[in-house]
Amino acid sequence: GAVRIFTGAVLPPRADAVVMQEDAVEGPDGVAFHHAPAVGSHVRRRGQDLREGARVLGAGTLLGPGEVAALAAQGVAEVELFRRPRVAVLSTGDELWEGEGPPPAGRILDANGPALAAAIEDAGCEAVVLRRAPDALAPLTTSVRDGLRADALVISGGVSVGDHDLVHLALRDAGVRAEFWKVDLKPGKPLTFGTAGRTPVFGLPGNPVSAWVTFEVFVRPALRRMLGHPDPHRAFVEVTLAAAATHATGRTELARARLDWSTGAPRATLLAQQGSGQLTSLLDVDALVRLPADRAAFEVGETLPALVLRPAHASSVSFDRVSFDRACLDPAAPQRPRP
Amino acid sequence: GAVRIFTGAVLPPRADAVVMQEDAVEGPDGVAFHHAPAVGSHVRRRGQDLREGARVLGAGTLLGPGEVAALAAQGVAEVELFRRPRVAVLSTGDELWEGEGPPPAGRILDANGPALAAAIEDAGCEAVVLRRAPDALAPLTTSVRDGLRADALVISGGVSVGDHDLVHLALRDAGVRAEFWKVDLKPGKPLTFGTAGRTPVFGLPGNPVSAWVTFEVFVRPALRRMLGHPDPHRAFVEVTLAAAATHATGRTELARARLDWSTGAPRATLLAQQGSGQLTSLLDVDALVRLPADRAAFEVGETLPALVLRPAHASSVSFDRVSFDRACLDPAAPQRPRP
Repeated sequence: GAVRIFTGAVLPPRADAVVMQEDAVEGPDGVAFHHAPAVGSHVRRRGQDLREGARVLGAGTLLGPGEVAALAAQGVAEVELFRRPRVAVLSTGDELWEGEGPPPAGRILDANGPALAAAIEDAGCEAVVLRRAPDALAPLTTSVRDGLRADALVISGGVSVGDHDLVHLALRDAGVRAEFWKVDLKPGKPLTFGTAGRTPVFGLPGNPVSAWVTFEVFVRPALRRMLGHPDPHRAFVEVTLAAAATHATGRTELARARLDWSTGAPRATLLAQQGSGQLTSLLDVDALVRLPADRAAFEVGETLPALVLRPAHASSVSFDRVSFDRACLDPAAPQRPRP
Repeated sequence: GAVRIFTGAVLPPRADAVVMQEDAVEGPDGVAFHHAPAVGSHVRRRGQDLREGARVLGAGTLLGPGEVAALAAQGVAEVELFRRPRVAVLSTGDELWEGEGPPPAGRILDANGPALAAAIEDAGCEAVVLRRAPDALAPLTTSVRDGLRADALVISGGVSVGDHDLVHLALRDAGVRAEFWKVDLKPGKPLTFGTAGRTPVFGLPGNPVSAWVTFEVFVRPALRRMLGHPDPHRAFVEVTLAAAATHATGRTELARARLDWSTGAPRATLLAQQGSGQLTSLLDVDALVRLPADRAAFEVGETLPALVLRPAHASSVSFDRVSFDRACLDPAAPQRPRP
């Protein structure tokens, strides 16, 4: 005999299979099925997904929607979390203008402080932006000491050879142990790394492009590691050059590029402006393509390793035959930022 | 003659090139250079990056660290933003237990509400979780009306053929115009979409795996479009099968898979458990591999299109010769969540 139940209901006593309504026909003499059901079909047994005592999630797991579903299904409403690291941001340089109104001749506005704060928050940490430090040892050392109260300190500027080593001296005076200075990389050569006990300290070049690239390659993985990520680094992915490219030999270069995924595999076009003074070249960058130090020219169609900064997205996919291009999905009217 | 300046300083009158300190030697008769400097070398001209009157960012631009840098450098401290859509989440079903303590026999805890809320927040929107609605038309219709006060409504459960069409009836009674019901996709067949004026309404299957997949493929792109993203969909990327796989023909399947990027190109291993009742199969999913409806078996090494859910990451990269495996980068001690 057959009994009608709804999706999710308990199996009645002695029932041993479920037939979907679409596969059943109700007649005068009861219910007939299109096919004879197999024992156990459409039945979920208790403990089928997770046995009693099984581990749902291990320590160090990043919680996404799937993990939240698994915890919620087990009635776990509260879990222990790693604390988000607080990361101090310190911009240095006499040329930075903090006054009202547009900067006078020879002064510029600080782009690194806000950009590094955004990148730190994007990496899952909490940013604490300190006041700009001038190019003078005593106030710079005081600022470094302030920054060391955070879980990590990211400084920009003052680490190049021509800069009187001010940041290096301030780090020394504040008790930071120098771990390394300079990397064989373009952009980013003067990168500095030190530690004060358990607090990592990064000295990034003052140039906004160099600061951003070194943040991506060195600081972000370190912060993700502090957050407990098992895979803190971006992996190198092979990309195909969509256009020929050249660079100056002598140093490995991470060239900013846009990616086209429309063929199913990444095709990279290097930005025309690779100068580290081109702040606008940070806009709409999808990847950093690694150009080896010993080669000057690269051909269309050759493959190079790249750090992919954002997952492949498209304006439409042929997959869903149903169009979602409806007025109801258009953005809401722009708003003034909320306080 | 030569004058010493620091990085970022204004060029002195009549100077027309800068030589890096590394390329200069100070002697008794002044400064000597390793190479004759070219006119304009290491000089940044005013307006070189952005001319006066140039557009820095267009409307609809997603603000990342690079965009923040560009705005900050121009002294733009405030911009108009699109409002984040508020998205209501409604779980339906008599089997869902909301009482204290573990659920009695035949009742389960709601995994969809918390998981969909996490996915909505992850997509950049604000989630509003409503109280569970029972399988009864009047209270369900009231809940739908409540949900329509948000900018979008996501319902889970009650959309299958066997479920008495309760959600469809409630949507009709609440004034929602039916746009489509059912998609030719596994998992996710009973997906329902409707509109109430400018408010999109999604009816997802109650099964947590199906709810999650249909959210990823249909709801997330719609929400990203409401947020103003120019490329709201994930793009299909070609992945290589690392192991043979089979599936039941008849419907296109989106199979959950893990990706290995260690060779520079994505190699996919489909999860052994593809059953839509396997909640634990949502953990650690990197991609949804598209298996065509007309083929049952797939070989090692063949390529298939996949929606990649997270960018390639690695536990280490050979790129940086400097080791960051330092104790100071270990995660902080776990904490109880803050209230």
